[in-house]
Amino acid sequence: MDKGLLIVISGPSGAGKGTICKELLKMPNLEMSVSETTRKPRKGEIHGVNYFFQDKETFLEGIKQEKYLEYAQVYGNYYGTPKDIILQKIEEGKDIILEIDFQGAIQIKKKYPDAIFIFILPPSLEELKNRIVKRGSETEESLNNRFGCALKEISYIDKYDYCVINNEVEEATQKVKTIIEAEHYRINKDILKIIQRYEEEVKCSTRP
Amino acid sequence: MDKGLLIVISGPSGAGKGTICKELLKMPNLEMSVSETTRKPRKGEIHGVNYFFQDKETFLEGIKQEKYLEYAQVYGNYYGTPKDIILQKIEEGKDIILEIDFQGAIQIKKKYPDAIFIFILPPSLEELKNRIVKRGSETEESLNNRFGCALKEISYIDKYDYCVINNEVEEATQKVKTIIEAEHYRINKDILKIIQRYEEEVKCSTRP
Repeated sequence: MDKGLLIVISGPSGAGKGTICKELLKMPNLEMSVSETTRKPRKGEIHGVNYFFQDKETFLEGIKQEKYLEYAQVYGNYYGTPKDIILQKIEEGKDIILEIDFQGAIQIKKKYPDAIFIFILPPSLEELKNRIVKRGSETEESLNNRFGCALKEISYIDKYDYCVINNEVEEATQKVKTIIEAEHYRINKDILKIIQRYEEEVKCSTRP
Repeated sequence: MDKGLLIVISGPSGAGKGTICKELLKMPNLEMSVSETTRKPRKGEIHGVNYFFQDKETFLEGIKQEKYLEYAQVYGNYYGTPKDIILQKIEEGKDIILEIDFQGAIQIKKKYPDAIFIFILPPSLEELKNRIVKRGSETEESLNNRFGCALKEISYIDKYDYCVINNEVEEATQKVKTIIEAEHYRINKDILKIIQRYEEEVKCSTRP
């Protein structure tokens, strides 16, 4: 059984990452990473499905013990990607999707350089602005703030492996699927197993 | 218009590279590289289609002037991949397929490191032997020789980016197509153009 892949998906708010990830989850053998958080559960959120809810002391201890592939503090709450669960699933052959920002992606790259980094872009800045506006009745200040963050996020695109422009969700999702499939044919350390299998065959066939 | 890709396909004799390449050529926007050779044309071979036929002096002068992405001498004849034609087609957005052995591939990697290197494997050595036997009534000596060469070729697989096991031609061709498509989404120097386009947009929209 081949090992699975860790697929990191980033992009500015409004690029449509979330919708693409939801579509990707319909693929067999692919799972979304579930984060740990110190935030209190909201109504309807299920422990182990939406998040693993954790108290702050345990989380801080986890950071010390390098339990997270990446973590961040947002509005006083901690969010982290638990390492062991993900590495175990990858070992079992599952592909794991991780939707995070460039700061998280950079942490992942250091701890798990074999991950695949995909950046989702909106077709234009104009369209990005439209999508951010559509999300809710925001003040001009918060709109400009989100737009500024989006531009900053985009400036990190050169740290990624692939870029998919989300003109249309179905088409963009198909492109991400193509990237994931192709990455399964990549030659890595596991290829040694194939070579070994061939060598075993040769030994068997030439044995007297 | 995006630049095209140079796709190098190798694999042991009997892996089915030729059949896969023939299938790939049905893709739009994809062409096979045409080699130069000092070998005399065989009946039915057309200059510019099968080969560019060249006299030895011109070829040797071409080697001096680094006119070839790779070249080799086989049974006293020279064969080479002309650099300028290929680079021009890539610049125009065409994908170029190059079917060569690992020695050619290693030369290409030095001169054009952006090329994509794909290795085609037969499902097993047993099957490889069957396919080599099927190709013609060979003596046991030439059979063993070809089999030995195939094993040597396989030992260079770790120099390649991707590996496709050819159990069945249609499926294997589809896998190579998937790799080529995914490589078109790879972030490279051209991504700077996208960033620039975004920056231009920002400048325009913030100009008083």
